[in-house]
Amino acid sequence: MTAIDPEALGARAEALITDLAKISAEPDRLIRLFLTPEHRRATNLIAAWMRDAGLAVSEDALGTVRGRWAAAGEGKGTNVAPRRLLIGSHIDTVIDAGRYDGPFGVIAGLLAIEHFMRAGQRFPFGIDVLAFGDEEGSRFSATLTSSAAVAGAFDPGRLAATDFDGVTLADALTAFGKNPGDIPAAAYEPGEAAAYIEVHIEQGPVLEAMDQSLGVVTGIYGQTRLSADVLGEAGHAGTVPMRLRRDALAGAAEMTLIVERLARETQGAVVATVGHLTAQPNASNVISAHVAFTVDIRSGSDTARSDLIQNFRAGARAAADRRHLGLTITQHRNVATTPCDPGIQDALAAAVAEVARPGREPLRLGSGAGHDGQMMARLCPIGMLFVRCRGGISHNPMEYASPRDMGLAVAALIRFIEGFAPPAA
Amino acid sequence: MTAIDPEALGARAEALITDLAKISAEPDRLIRLFLTPEHRRATNLIAAWMRDAGLAVSEDALGTVRGRWAAAGEGKGTNVAPRRLLIGSHIDTVIDAGRYDGPFGVIAGLLAIEHFMRAGQRFPFGIDVLAFGDEEGSRFSATLTSSAAVAGAFDPGRLAATDFDGVTLADALTAFGKNPGDIPAAAYEPGEAAAYIEVHIEQGPVLEAMDQSLGVVTGIYGQTRLSADVLGEAGHAGTVPMRLRRDALAGAAEMTLIVERLARETQGAVVATVGHLTAQPNASNVISAHVAFTVDIRSGSDTARSDLIQNFRAGARAAADRRHLGLTITQHRNVATTPCDPGIQDALAAAVAEVARPGREPLRLGSGAGHDGQMMARLCPIGMLFVRCRGGISHNPMEYASPRDMGLAVAALIRFIEGFAPPAA
Repeated sequence: MTAIDPEALGARAEALITDLAKISAEPDRLIRLFLTPEHRRATNLIAAWMRDAGLAVSEDALGTVRGRWAAAGEGKGTNVAPRRLLIGSHIDTVIDAGRYDGPFGVIAGLLAIEHFMRAGQRFPFGIDVLAFGDEEGSRFSATLTSSAAVAGAFDPGRLAATDFDGVTLADALTAFGKNPGDIPAAAYEPGEAAAYIEVHIEQGPVLEAMDQSLGVVTGIYGQTRLSADVLGEAGHAGTVPMRLRRDALAGAAEMTLIVERLARETQGAVVATVGHLTAQPNASNVISAHVAFTVDIRSGSDTARSDLIQNFRAGARAAADRRHLGLTITQHRNVATTPCDPGIQDALAAAVAEVARPGREPLRLGSGAGHDGQMMARLCPIGMLFVRCRGGISHNPMEYASPRDMGLAVAALIRFIEGFAPPAA
Repeated sequence: MTAIDPEALGARAEALITDLAKISAEPDRLIRLFLTPEHRRATNLIAAWMRDAGLAVSEDALGTVRGRWAAAGEGKGTNVAPRRLLIGSHIDTVIDAGRYDGPFGVIAGLLAIEHFMRAGQRFPFGIDVLAFGDEEGSRFSATLTSSAAVAGAFDPGRLAATDFDGVTLADALTAFGKNPGDIPAAAYEPGEAAAYIEVHIEQGPVLEAMDQSLGVVTGIYGQTRLSADVLGEAGHAGTVPMRLRRDALAGAAEMTLIVERLARETQGAVVATVGHLTAQPNASNVISAHVAFTVDIRSGSDTARSDLIQNFRAGARAAADRRHLGLTITQHRNVATTPCDPGIQDALAAAVAEVARPGREPLRLGSGAGHDGQMMARLCPIGMLFVRCRGGISHNPMEYASPRDMGLAVAALIRFIEGFAPPAA
């Protein structure tokens, strides 16, 4: 194994992240949306970095920049194409974003290859670094379309999705110089991709709370989003006795606490959140007639998520009946859990233990946020490595990961690759 | 005692209410704000009714129309001015109002005098019918200014109150043909007013729920309005474990249920309402950072109201501390209970029992809504009679009181007046 200098890797990661963060639609906040001039400038910069590192660069029909690094002996007369390890993340952002969410996963792959090039290492598998253009879904009413195309799972119906100005994804792709007819060609051949690895900031507070630089992701949480409408009866806050009230806000408050209690009772298996709540008429001297609220439920276990939803429905229904309130619960989103491959988890854990936590088992944790890995799991086994971020803050200019932690992440990725053996196709 | 025809009284009350309801700022909804052209048209109509009934009409510096009906033998050589029984309510409305809230109290007084005129009755006290112009406070940031002037309790600072267009009360009074310098003259002399009686729709569901046409008011609830600001920490709904959350909305939900529980525990002594609640950032996938809500607390007992507030503050503080949330509670309004005179209550109860509930004790109930009586109580003993309204609905075009119930109310008012003896001044 080669010697690694995590400090130098972290400093270089920070420098590249800073360069990329200069590319924004606005000078005072970071906005880099899919298929915009900013996206083009970002793909140009990433492609230049990749070429400098010795990668063969291409760009597919959904704007994903792909840097190919050959396997040992690749192209030297053998007829069997080597399998490929895919490493990537996304370079689009939310509006008023932080600079680490996404780009660091692309840069980590690039820095690992730079390391191998310097060390003169090659592997029996090729490595592709992927920079996806549409993970956040900040522009179109669609997310993960870039990784969907790469995974061969792109839904052509998404081409009709529109942005705030009514421009369709199809038209935006054409304006970006793409041909929607080429989308199927963006997909890997079956068996070609050996695994997909993504390094990403945690976007949560767990690593920081546990004083850990890195964590191995067990899976990407499944998610269900419900909306609830509670119907009561408006009334004068002074004249309607408590026992004659049908107070929609008091009912919604009880249901909000049911959500919280049920999630707490899972002791970490499920997180559930009432984040949006509006009351009507929302006047201090009127009993509420109608309250609408959302419930966001996520878990690494589809069973645990489903159980909580069932318990919430039953508890909310009982509260509504007792209070003589109307209740309608609608499901808006239901995405299954995406498990990370157990073998990859173990290999990542071994790599993390070596570089960041000698002699101790690294922390494993689920990802409550969505990632390109959810699409890539349709193509091949996936693994993810989380990097501590300050205060658990993301999607915010305050987002921050230290150069030290990023350097350790690249070092762990290097060790993982050195130990990687493609599983049977 | 004279014979009374409640059915005819109810039909006439309904007809006058219908005529007055035609006077509105808009053709499709009822809006009659203080010191507007609609207010002027309404005072003209009321004054015409009063003159037709044989009353001496005047209008004071705050636009209150006063119809004076002389005592028996008044002005016939005696030097002692007779005391006066005041009967009134208001003719201004909220925006998109019902037609009964206010006007019926003026019309009830007028119909009682019409009855006495027909029957040739006079009393040892005079009767003044008062039509106040500003009870609702829908135009200026001030309420009860008309009755305040009549009670000699007008605060000159209120002249600077402004409407939505920035017009001050002082300027609006001048434009209405008044002179703010004349306001002190609107007040009754000490001892002149023997009592103030107001007939009003209940604006609540109690009489309907108890199957009663009329109820005797025990007092006008004191009211405290609080606002609470709950400060938590925004976070990703998927990535922040339940045990690391500082969820302002879950905290506010717990406090909302504390308000409800405390009010229920008083078994009718206090009503308390969280009617306004806003969450920030109010996004389904973000843990709430800030929730603001109001608490409206009303009671016929100042002690019970004060106890509930103290218990709410303690309970909310404990919840905030346990949840590591910031909490600020601000008091915006604190009005003491206005009791109705016990002797007047008994006399009204006897009158109600005679016309509407022979042989049974009428219902007595507190008023959760505010009324001109709160100001008039500074001048003299007050009493109020409530009339059942459909569904407890008021401040709404759906507001309705039946002609039958209104006829019974006027009949009870007539019997009350017939039995009235001014208390010692």
